[in-house]
Amino acid sequence: MHSNRIMCPKLSERIMSASEAAAFISSGMIIGMSGFSTGAPKAIPAEMVKHADNLTIIQGAGLGGLDKLAASGSVSRYTAFQWSRELRSEINGGKIAFSDIHLGQLPDKLRRGTFGKPDIAIIECSKINEDGGIVPSLSVGISNALIECADKVLLEVNLAVPSEIEGLHDICPNGHKPLRGVLERTGEPVYRCDPNKIIGIVITNEEEPKIGFRDTNEVYSDIARQVLRLLDKEIAENRLPRDFALQAGVGGVANAVLLGLSEGGYKGLKMFTEVLADSALGFIKSGVITEASTTTLDLSPVGLEAFFSDLDFYKDHIVLRPLEISNGVTQITAMEPVAMNTALEVDIYGNVNSTHAMGTKMLNGLGGSNDFCRSAKISVFITPSTAKNGDISSIVPMVTHVDSTEHDVDIIATEYGYADLRGKSPKERALEIIENCAHPDYRAALREYYDGAVALCGSCQTPHDLSKSLSWHQRFLEKGTMKQS
Amino acid sequence: MHSNRIMCPKLSERIMSASEAAAFISSGMIIGMSGFSTGAPKAIPAEMVKHADNLTIIQGAGLGGLDKLAASGSVSRYTAFQWSRELRSEINGGKIAFSDIHLGQLPDKLRRGTFGKPDIAIIECSKINEDGGIVPSLSVGISNALIECADKVLLEVNLAVPSEIEGLHDICPNGHKPLRGVLERTGEPVYRCDPNKIIGIVITNEEEPKIGFRDTNEVYSDIARQVLRLLDKEIAENRLPRDFALQAGVGGVANAVLLGLSEGGYKGLKMFTEVLADSALGFIKSGVITEASTTTLDLSPVGLEAFFSDLDFYKDHIVLRPLEISNGVTQITAMEPVAMNTALEVDIYGNVNSTHAMGTKMLNGLGGSNDFCRSAKISVFITPSTAKNGDISSIVPMVTHVDSTEHDVDIIATEYGYADLRGKSPKERALEIIENCAHPDYRAALREYYDGAVALCGSCQTPHDLSKSLSWHQRFLEKGTMKQS
Repeated sequence: MHSNRIMCPKLSERIMSASEAAAFISSGMIIGMSGFSTGAPKAIPAEMVKHADNLTIIQGAGLGGLDKLAASGSVSRYTAFQWSRELRSEINGGKIAFSDIHLGQLPDKLRRGTFGKPDIAIIECSKINEDGGIVPSLSVGISNALIECADKVLLEVNLAVPSEIEGLHDICPNGHKPLRGVLERTGEPVYRCDPNKIIGIVITNEEEPKIGFRDTNEVYSDIARQVLRLLDKEIAENRLPRDFALQAGVGGVANAVLLGLSEGGYKGLKMFTEVLADSALGFIKSGVITEASTTTLDLSPVGLEAFFSDLDFYKDHIVLRPLEISNGVTQITAMEPVAMNTALEVDIYGNVNSTHAMGTKMLNGLGGSNDFCRSAKISVFITPSTAKNGDISSIVPMVTHVDSTEHDVDIIATEYGYADLRGKSPKERALEIIENCAHPDYRAALREYYDGAVALCGSCQTPHDLSKSLSWHQRFLEKGTMKQS
Repeated sequence: MHSNRIMCPKLSERIMSASEAAAFISSGMIIGMSGFSTGAPKAIPAEMVKHADNLTIIQGAGLGGLDKLAASGSVSRYTAFQWSRELRSEINGGKIAFSDIHLGQLPDKLRRGTFGKPDIAIIECSKINEDGGIVPSLSVGISNALIECADKVLLEVNLAVPSEIEGLHDICPNGHKPLRGVLERTGEPVYRCDPNKIIGIVITNEEEPKIGFRDTNEVYSDIARQVLRLLDKEIAENRLPRDFALQAGVGGVANAVLLGLSEGGYKGLKMFTEVLADSALGFIKSGVITEASTTTLDLSPVGLEAFFSDLDFYKDHIVLRPLEISNGVTQITAMEPVAMNTALEVDIYGNVNSTHAMGTKMLNGLGGSNDFCRSAKISVFITPSTAKNGDISSIVPMVTHVDSTEHDVDIIATEYGYADLRGKSPKERALEIIENCAHPDYRAALREYYDGAVALCGSCQTPHDLSKSLSWHQRFLEKGTMKQS
C-alpha cells in the first residue's frame, strides 16, 4: 500500500490513521508544524482538537488549517506568522499568547530553545524515499529545524502532491554561507530524520485550503506605477542592474509591478523571496523571471494545476529553501534584492508599522518584512495613502508601533508618489513624505503638525509635539475618522 | 625625511603642509574622514575651517576633532555616529542635516552613493610602505571604503603612532563571508590605494584628543551584577559556552561585567565588538580575554602607553577590522556574541530608544547597537532605571522613538534586575519589565498605565491607552519630572 510513496520498509510499518496519530498529542505539549501558508499538516490537526488543550503551536506561517484548532480553544501559545482569522481573534482576545518575531530568525530561535523543545513535530511531505529521506510538499519553512529539534515526529504523506516534486527543494541547514546565485543548491532535496523519532505516518489526499481572493484595484496599479518609476530611475542611474532580484509579497501591487516590468521589456529577473504566488509562474514561463528562490509556493488550485503539469520546467527555475536561507540576512545581503513590503502605516520620519492596528490589535505579524528590508539593496514600503474609505491616513505624525525603524526604510510609495529617504535627515524626510506620499486630504494637517513641532522644539533632529503625536489615532478611535472637522 | 614612514619614493614627493593640503578643499565638497573615535585626521581638519563651508562630512564615528569644524559653521551635513558636543549642538539646532544609520551598513551605503561620491578622503595612517600599502593608525572604521570611493585622497602620517603597529589590522573588503574565528585574518594589513589618487601627504605628530571620563558608580556595578546573573544562568543551563564572545561598549557597566567575569574565574573569553577600551587590555593580559576583534582602539594616554609598550603581545590577541566586518551581520551571526548595549529608554513591551531624548533631541546616534543586537546570540540592553536624579523613568509606557524594536531585544537589565523577553508575548513582557526592571518609585504608575490600557482595549496583543502613552514625557517637559504628584 502506497509503496511508491513510502519506499522505506521500516517506516511503512508505522502507517496509522489521523486519529491514532493525534492520540500521541496530549495537553500542554509543544507542537511544531510544517507549513508556510501551504504545506501544513491537514489530517492530524483536525483530530487534535478532540485530544488536547493548552497547546503551544510553532509554525512558520499558519493559514486556514489553524482556524478550527484555534477556535476550539486548544491553543494557548502560538508563533509565528498567521493568516488565520480565528487565530488572530484569539490572540487579540487575550486567549493565545503570541510572540511576533523576524521570521528568518525562527529556525535559530527554535534551535536555541526560545519557545521550548517541541514534543512532537507534525510534518507534511510528499514521499519517503528508500533511505528514509523525506521529500517536502509545497513549502519548507521551518520543517527541517522542527525535525531536528523535536523529540518525536509525525508525518503526513499527502498524495495530492505529485511525487515528481522531488528535486524542487534544497535543504541545507547551514545558514551562514552566502549563496553564489539564486538557484545555487548546497544541500539535499530531502529532510533527514532519525527513523526512530518517527512515531507515525498518516496518508492524506487533501488539497490546500483555498487562498483568499487577492484583489487588484486602481490604487494598487497606481502604487505599482510609482515603484516602476523608481526602478526605472535606479536602473537608468546605474544603481541597479536590469536583471535585479526582487523580494515581494503576494498582493496586487507585487503582481502589478511584475506586469509592468514585463511590459517594460525586462527579461531575466530574479526573485529572492519567501513566498511565490500564481502570477510568478506566468512570468517564469515568459522569461521575465528566470530564477526564483522561495520557501513556499502559495498557489491557487489553478496555479497548482499549471505548476504540476509542467513540473520539470519549473524545477529548473525555482528552488524551495528552508526559512533560515530564504530569509537569511547573509543570503539576502549577497543577493541584493529590491525588497517590497507592505506597511500598515508610516510616519512622517519614515518609521513603519506593519503589524498593529491603532498600536494595539495584531494583524498578521511581522513576517519576513524586516529580514528583507534590513539587508536589501533598496527597501521599499508600499501602502495606499488612506484606509477605511479615507478615514484613516496611512501617513501619520507618529506611528503607534514600530516594526521597521527609520534606519531600515529607503523608499515609501503610495498611489501619489514615492519618497526617497536615503541619506536624508528626518526633517528632509518629513517634507518628502508629506508632499509625495500623503493623500491630498491630509497634507495640510500633516504640514501643520510638522510646523507646530518645529516651532515647539526648535528645529531639533526629529521635531515632535508629544501632546499631538498620537492625536490622529485617538480621533479615529473616538470619532471614526482621522480627519479634523 | 621620514623615509622610514613614507617608504614609497613616488609618494614621498607629495609631502606638504596641512595648510597646503587643506587648500584642496573647497565649499560644497563631500569629505570623507578616517576615524572611529581614534584615528581621525588631525592637522588638515583644523586648517579646513578657513577654507570651505557647506561641507558634507562622512566619518565612522566623530570625536572631539570635529568640534572646531562643526562650531565654525563649515559643516552642513554629517554622517554617522558622533560624540562631539559642538556637532550635536549644531545638529539639534537645525544647522547640520544628520542622517542616522546602522553603522555596519555605512561602508555599503557609501559604495552605493547614498551620501554622494566623496570628493576627497582624508585618512590618518601610521606608515606608507614601499609598495604603496598604507598602514592604518588606531582605527579602521570606513577608511578602506572611503579610499575606494573618493576621487582624491589626502593622507596624514601620524608619527605619534609607532610604525610597529603594522600587522594589527586586517583589511578585507569582502563583507559577505562568515569568519571562522574571532582572530581569523582574510585580508591584508594595509589599505590599497591607486597612488595617482593621493594628492597630498601631511606629516603629523599628534596625540589622540582626550577621552571623556568614563565613570563607574554603584548603579553601574548593580546593573553589571544583573548581567552576570544572566550569564551564569545561561551557561549553567547550556545555552552559552563558558568561552562565549561579548560585544560591549566602553562604559562603566561593560567594565564592571568584565571585572565580574574575571573574578568569577572565566578565562578564554572573546570580544567581537566595534570598540575596545583600556579595561580590555588588562583582561587580555590576564587571559580573561584571549581573542578580540574591533574596528577601533579607544584608549586613554595611559592605555595607549600600555598598548604600545607591548605591541607584539597585543598583536597576537587583537585584530582591527573594517566596520563592514566588525559590525557585519554575517560575521556577528557566525560569532554568536552576547551583545550588550545601552538604552536611553525602554517601554513596557521591550522597544528601545537609543538616540532621541524625549523623542526629539539627538544624542550620539544609533551606532552599531542594532547591528549587534539583531544578529547576536543574546541581545541585552542595559540602562539605569532612572535618570535626572529620579525625575525620568527609563522604563516608560511607550518610547518616544524606536531604534531597536521589540523583535530585537532579548533582555532588559537595570540595577533592579533583568527581564527575559525571549519567546514572550507583549503582555507577558510588560509584567516582567515592570516588576524586574522599573524603579520602585515608578512601578505602581506603570502597573496603573498597563491595567488601564488592558481595560480600555480588552487584552489585545499590545494594550495601550494612546491618550496617556506619551503623557510621562509630556509631564517631564512641562514639570521637570515624570513623577505624578
